[in-house]
Amino acid sequence: MPRYKLILEYDGAPFCGWQRQENGPSVQAALEAAIFKLSGETVTVTGAGRTDAGVHALGQVAHFDLEKRFAADKVRDALNYHVKPDPVAVLEAEEISEDFHARFSATARHYVYRIVCRRAPLVMDRGKAWHVMHALDAEAMHHAAQALIGTHDFTTFRASECQAKSPVKSLDKLSVRRALDEIVIEASARSFLHHQVRSMVGTLKLVGEGKWARRDVEKALKATDRKECGPVAPADGLYLVRVDY
Amino acid sequence: MPRYKLILEYDGAPFCGWQRQENGPSVQAALEAAIFKLSGETVTVTGAGRTDAGVHALGQVAHFDLEKRFAADKVRDALNYHVKPDPVAVLEAEEISEDFHARFSATARHYVYRIVCRRAPLVMDRGKAWHVMHALDAEAMHHAAQALIGTHDFTTFRASECQAKSPVKSLDKLSVRRALDEIVIEASARSFLHHQVRSMVGTLKLVGEGKWARRDVEKALKATDRKECGPVAPADGLYLVRVDY
Repeated sequence: MPRYKLILEYDGAPFCGWQRQENGPSVQAALEAAIFKLSGETVTVTGAGRTDAGVHALGQVAHFDLEKRFAADKVRDALNYHVKPDPVAVLEAEEISEDFHARFSATARHYVYRIVCRRAPLVMDRGKAWHVMHALDAEAMHHAAQALIGTHDFTTFRASECQAKSPVKSLDKLSVRRALDEIVIEASARSFLHHQVRSMVGTLKLVGEGKWARRDVEKALKATDRKECGPVAPADGLYLVRVDY
Repeated sequence: MPRYKLILEYDGAPFCGWQRQENGPSVQAALEAAIFKLSGETVTVTGAGRTDAGVHALGQVAHFDLEKRFAADKVRDALNYHVKPDPVAVLEAEEISEDFHARFSATARHYVYRIVCRRAPLVMDRGKAWHVMHALDAEAMHHAAQALIGTHDFTTFRASECQAKSPVKSLDKLSVRRALDEIVIEASARSFLHHQVRSMVGTLKLVGEGKWARRDVEKALKATDRKECGPVAPADGLYLVRVDY
């Protein structure tokens, strides 16, 4: 029974998220419908990260099994054909060992969060970045972000509906840099809690505005209390860019 | 009578182009309607470049006159408010001397054309780049592009409906470079003929595919014959990025 690995790009805007839900379109259901059109088989597609409503992916990874064997290039092209007009693209497809599991085999997940700082509303980046109407201090944000690196109880930065068994996670990278009027935040870890990246970004924005200092971020982390978190950043700016195995 | 200069970003997709037309929405009409809502005055907005249907702008420049004087920041913010939900943003507004003319005072116009080369359909860049399903040789394209630099009769690269008095233009820059799976073409000149950039890009694509060599581009230019031009590249990939004065 062949297993296929997919690398996916999608625009999160029209979806209620990665995961199949009764009350709206999901990326998972769109792919499963396309796979049915190709193969006539009803399968479950497993993703590396269950991105939320509105969150984008440039390099989500997923796997699924089929009874019948298709050439990997045929899988890629056929799924791209059948998934239209949904904004999902199969960048790569390959047949892979049955040991491979998109979610459990992942050794690192890499996210990027984009903030555009300007007075004027977003046009080309509408729905694709967080629009903030004033400048942010990227250096101060980067400095404060380093307080979150390492293995910690991230309860402060965890959504109440998070299903992870433990709030303890190891954050490998949280870097903040400015590029023209844009703030680019890169976050890497083996895995993240639900809303962790957006919670950290929302907190770092307070630092960028001068309302918080690095010590406030340290205090919030140590409090292990959801109420100490800054406002959660909107989904628009978040991209799952790569998953390592 | 105060004159205002605007720097504009817009997504060209929903518009029939910059210029006001009877059969569809234009960027010009959207701005004129927003100016009326601000001031109660019916004005004509003059743009530096009359971009075609689907062509985007990151730095279009325009001017208009009002009877009543408003602070420039108020003009910027009010137009951004009133132009909604059209995908047009006023990045900057300033009051400027009556000598200034967005179109006739311009000394250089800078365009970028984006081609994304990959098998999978475009998702995040849908409508924002030309999707080509195979690789292109950017070096060969750049080399051939240099044959078009300088002052020439660009009749070969001119739309039949072009209204310019003369087909002779001076092309200052036409560079081609690759960035991952993207080909980025930069074109600069005091002014361009109608469809000139897209005609040159479509011709250079033939070079990138190995169908044409630099000498074929030279021959096409010298022919001063529209029939010698490659297929015109689609509007999706073209951006007016800056206008100099």
